[in-house]
Amino acid sequence: MSPFTRNKTESVGALGERRLIEKIRGWLGNATLPAPYGIGDDCAVLPPSKKQQVVTVDPVIYRRHFDDRATPAEVGAKLLKRNLSDLAAMGAVPTAAVLALAIGANLRTAWLEGFYRGLATTSRRYRVPIVGGDIAQAEGALTASLTLIGRAAGKRVVTRSGARIGDWIYVTGQLGGSLLGHHLRFTPRLSEGVWLAAQKDVRALMDVSDGLAKDLYSLVPSGARPQLRSDAIPVSRGAQKLAARDQRPAVDHAVSDGEDYELVCAVSGRADRERFESAWARHFRTRLTCIGRFVRIDTPVSAGEVNLGNLHGYEHLR
Amino acid sequence: MSPFTRNKTESVGALGERRLIEKIRGWLGNATLPAPYGIGDDCAVLPPSKKQQVVTVDPVIYRRHFDDRATPAEVGAKLLKRNLSDLAAMGAVPTAAVLALAIGANLRTAWLEGFYRGLATTSRRYRVPIVGGDIAQAEGALTASLTLIGRAAGKRVVTRSGARIGDWIYVTGQLGGSLLGHHLRFTPRLSEGVWLAAQKDVRALMDVSDGLAKDLYSLVPSGARPQLRSDAIPVSRGAQKLAARDQRPAVDHAVSDGEDYELVCAVSGRADRERFESAWARHFRTRLTCIGRFVRIDTPVSAGEVNLGNLHGYEHLR
Repeated sequence: MSPFTRNKTESVGALGERRLIEKIRGWLGNATLPAPYGIGDDCAVLPPSKKQQVVTVDPVIYRRHFDDRATPAEVGAKLLKRNLSDLAAMGAVPTAAVLALAIGANLRTAWLEGFYRGLATTSRRYRVPIVGGDIAQAEGALTASLTLIGRAAGKRVVTRSGARIGDWIYVTGQLGGSLLGHHLRFTPRLSEGVWLAAQKDVRALMDVSDGLAKDLYSLVPSGARPQLRSDAIPVSRGAQKLAARDQRPAVDHAVSDGEDYELVCAVSGRADRERFESAWARHFRTRLTCIGRFVRIDTPVSAGEVNLGNLHGYEHLR
Repeated sequence: MSPFTRNKTESVGALGERRLIEKIRGWLGNATLPAPYGIGDDCAVLPPSKKQQVVTVDPVIYRRHFDDRATPAEVGAKLLKRNLSDLAAMGAVPTAAVLALAIGANLRTAWLEGFYRGLATTSRRYRVPIVGGDIAQAEGALTASLTLIGRAAGKRVVTRSGARIGDWIYVTGQLGGSLLGHHLRFTPRLSEGVWLAAQKDVRALMDVSDGLAKDLYSLVPSGARPQLRSDAIPVSRGAQKLAARDQRPAVDHAVSDGEDYELVCAVSGRADRERFESAWARHFRTRLTCIGRFVRIDTPVSAGEVNLGNLHGYEHLR
């Protein structure tokens, strides 16, 4: 569905502000809360928190993060799930979300309804209320920015720093080919993130959003480089399909396509890997793969290693 | 300054993502914090909070909230101050902010620098770190959404509900004519909001952003209507100037222009008003004016009363 319409009666402009906000409350249903804990006051009120808290913000923008092939519900779901993936990457759980919309008056009301219903369904699934927001008019625009607030699930949040030379590199799920549908239908790895944060051997954690070849550099300890075994990279079916189309190696797609929303972590080089992996397998059906380790930066490149130097992830603002 | 340029070398597109983010860190300086408490991890980490917390989000959009007459620094300052005004309206103080930008690749780097420097100056003035954000590309766009997190300054946050029939209506500062400059140069009433929230006689509080004639309806108790004395409305010089130009009464401008970012509150009808007003005057140079009270809805309109029925505030999405 195209988000915009030339038929004014079908547009949000025909509704006006007050009726639109009433409709939004209806679309959100119990995914929001009564004021002042939800929509309707100057701010939304959040509870105190004994735990460390986290905050992240990520948008979806028409023609950048989705196009007419995506259903509006998928777009609403994607917006929240992208942010949930960032929380998962710290070992945090969500508390509340606020949404800022910048939209043209010619936005189709039916599109917006689908978007909010998709957002609400995802909000209920992950138990994160949409407590507030803002709608502003911007000609021809369709930009939705969601800010997600969360808190540590356990004793700590896990950051990107903390990896050491010799640490193993693990990744969840399978990588690459996201454009074939995974970028809309992924599952944020929230419970996996909480579990990983509770393992003392996990030293650093992040999510893969711009592709492993780009994102992994945020985990690399000083004086080190990632040494990834090409045959260990979990290549998705999507990456294989794209590889068959464009004759590039499937592994290249896996490490550079982006929008995987999987977790990558550094596990102590002294960890009992067998025990770590079997504990994981008792908790999750999601695959967890050791793809290599951090080695000294002067370690020669060996046969069968992924040559990350030639690969890039998704570059913003190019 | 026009935010956009046709000269590619002057644009953010020429910088690319990595260098742009480095530059932003520099422009923010000590208005941000090192990761994971500031920019650079999957989320920003916030401290625990024993107090109730609040969250709000408001944007600035090119051609909607500002135009080429505004300096980029004024735009950055306005973005944060709009949100601070929402916190003031609950009696809260700021904890941290995150910023989502949707910008065209042809945005002038110098414009963005001015914007961030204005934001940083305001951030330091009100002691609220900019802890994170996101920059996404959207053709021809210049939308900046800021989410502000705060916490109760005292024992409570004050909501919009709580006013009763017979309560007095007070407003800070002067109203109207904001387009002549006040919409960029206002001071969010943070300390005033904290003080008002600490007064037990203050029953409801909000900020005036779309004009008193529209906003005041959020405070009206059920079965009541606001009875405002026309000669009591604090009319700004801006409102007087606009009135001289368009021959409308200055009071009409005062109650309907919007973007005042003043506070309006309901004070118990049983309060010792003289004591309340003199206590205010000991703390603030900002004017505080009793403009009327909430009366039963069937109270006849009296001479000298503002006829709010004919007036409207700023209507979004029209």
